[in-house]
Amino acid sequence: MRLTTIRTDSGTRAARVEGDELVILDAADVGDLLRGHGDPEGGGTARPATDHELAPLVTHPGKIVCVGVNYRDHIEEMGREVPGAPTYFAKFRQALIGAHDDITLPAPDVSTHIDWEAELALVIGREVRHASASEAMAAIAGFTVMNDVSVRDYQRRTTQFLAGKTFEGMTPLGPLLVTTDECGDGSGLAITAEVDGVVKQSSNTSELVFNAVDIVQDLSTIITLEPGDVIATGTPGGVGAARTPPEWLTDGAVLRTEISGIGACENTCRRP
Amino acid sequence: MRLTTIRTDSGTRAARVEGDELVILDAADVGDLLRGHGDPEGGGTARPATDHELAPLVTHPGKIVCVGVNYRDHIEEMGREVPGAPTYFAKFRQALIGAHDDITLPAPDVSTHIDWEAELALVIGREVRHASASEAMAAIAGFTVMNDVSVRDYQRRTTQFLAGKTFEGMTPLGPLLVTTDECGDGSGLAITAEVDGVVKQSSNTSELVFNAVDIVQDLSTIITLEPGDVIATGTPGGVGAARTPPEWLTDGAVLRTEISGIGACENTCRRP
Repeated sequence: MRLTTIRTDSGTRAARVEGDELVILDAADVGDLLRGHGDPEGGGTARPATDHELAPLVTHPGKIVCVGVNYRDHIEEMGREVPGAPTYFAKFRQALIGAHDDITLPAPDVSTHIDWEAELALVIGREVRHASASEAMAAIAGFTVMNDVSVRDYQRRTTQFLAGKTFEGMTPLGPLLVTTDECGDGSGLAITAEVDGVVKQSSNTSELVFNAVDIVQDLSTIITLEPGDVIATGTPGGVGAARTPPEWLTDGAVLRTEISGIGACENTCRRP
Repeated sequence: MRLTTIRTDSGTRAARVEGDELVILDAADVGDLLRGHGDPEGGGTARPATDHELAPLVTHPGKIVCVGVNYRDHIEEMGREVPGAPTYFAKFRQALIGAHDDITLPAPDVSTHIDWEAELALVIGREVRHASASEAMAAIAGFTVMNDVSVRDYQRRTTQFLAGKTFEGMTPLGPLLVTTDECGDGSGLAITAEVDGVVKQSSNTSELVFNAVDIVQDLSTIITLEPGDVIATGTPGGVGAARTPPEWLTDGAVLRTEISGIGACENTCRRP
């Protein structure tokens, strides 16, 4: 099943994608649907889908957890060692934008070091704590695309990444939740980021050090995961900061983030 | 004004503290009240207050941001340098407990390295972005007490603190929100942590490198702060990890966290 969240005149709504049409569902967003409001398989008005109406896939996740240093090629380019445990940091809700929204760049006196990070993200569909591997797999509702667009100088001004990772309106999430019955555990998927049509990142989710199930299982040792929680699994090599010279996203740049079988976000950077 | 959040048979409710009595208000918790539901000065049934009914002061904060390495004496004991910018990390909602709830220790095979961190926390009362110092001050509804109880080996297993900071049911928050008309900007307050009656941390909030207003102003550069957001300002020297030999919280230990003029949390550690 393929689910999405759209903006309407009366707020956001969850919808099921059927071919080129959307079936509007009785839930405020995909997160609300996963929390048990509305029926994902329910009927409703079917109508053509348009890109511009896409909201963040989950509008009010209880948690957004990101995993850093988790692709072997990205670890190498950043000069880090393969870690023995997943590296977690957070984002807050206001960072999220829809799959085709503009990315709001900070004012130039705040930062110009804006970087891309294509990521496979999973969305939790079932409450889980102290999960076995099979319970972790069962807790994953499905997968989507995130670009963990990062403000590198804020990320690096202290030891903790959060400041550079949660800038408002910079993190595309969507366009679809593809449920696990269609895409399994999220492994074996081609993942790319393009800037203005030039491929910058090109890898495969099988390069993950800790895969989706590993991450859910480990996180559930720490805290209960709940329906609508969003977990981004990390980014492969090819980020701007690791290039010589470094490359940054600038006003007008178009960032396309695609995962095979899951979907694509395409977002234009705008400096207000 | 002094506000709190209590548990009732029909869920949590915000209340105003008047002497030894609580006036029950028409809001689910202090966060809900700050978001504009109910009237903080409204009437209601007044009745005696009891400790055991206290919920986390804000039950569903949109964000929990913590500041690390922010007291001069704690920076020294941890062997770090005075930072040029605040160090931010996050917690998630399920970490929070009430001011007199038990702290749930992890199973021994997960971790025994459980440490205390007494902290002054502020709660946002007004939406703010790109704040001046005066706007930042005006955005602070008031102050409360947090103990950022930390699982040190999880905090240190990677570069990012989050894993060790957001274990479920380990972070007391409360008992009261003391509004800024009573306690100003939160400076000049004695802050202590005691374990089984022995003082382990004793400092003053004037030792903060970045004070409450600095933090709100800086964070608002990154993201919109909203009513109910909780920001913990950091912990002074005297944590268990910095002692020789290191000291940890164990089953049955009573942790008391007090800030003069704001209140005290007293929590017993329990290994289930």
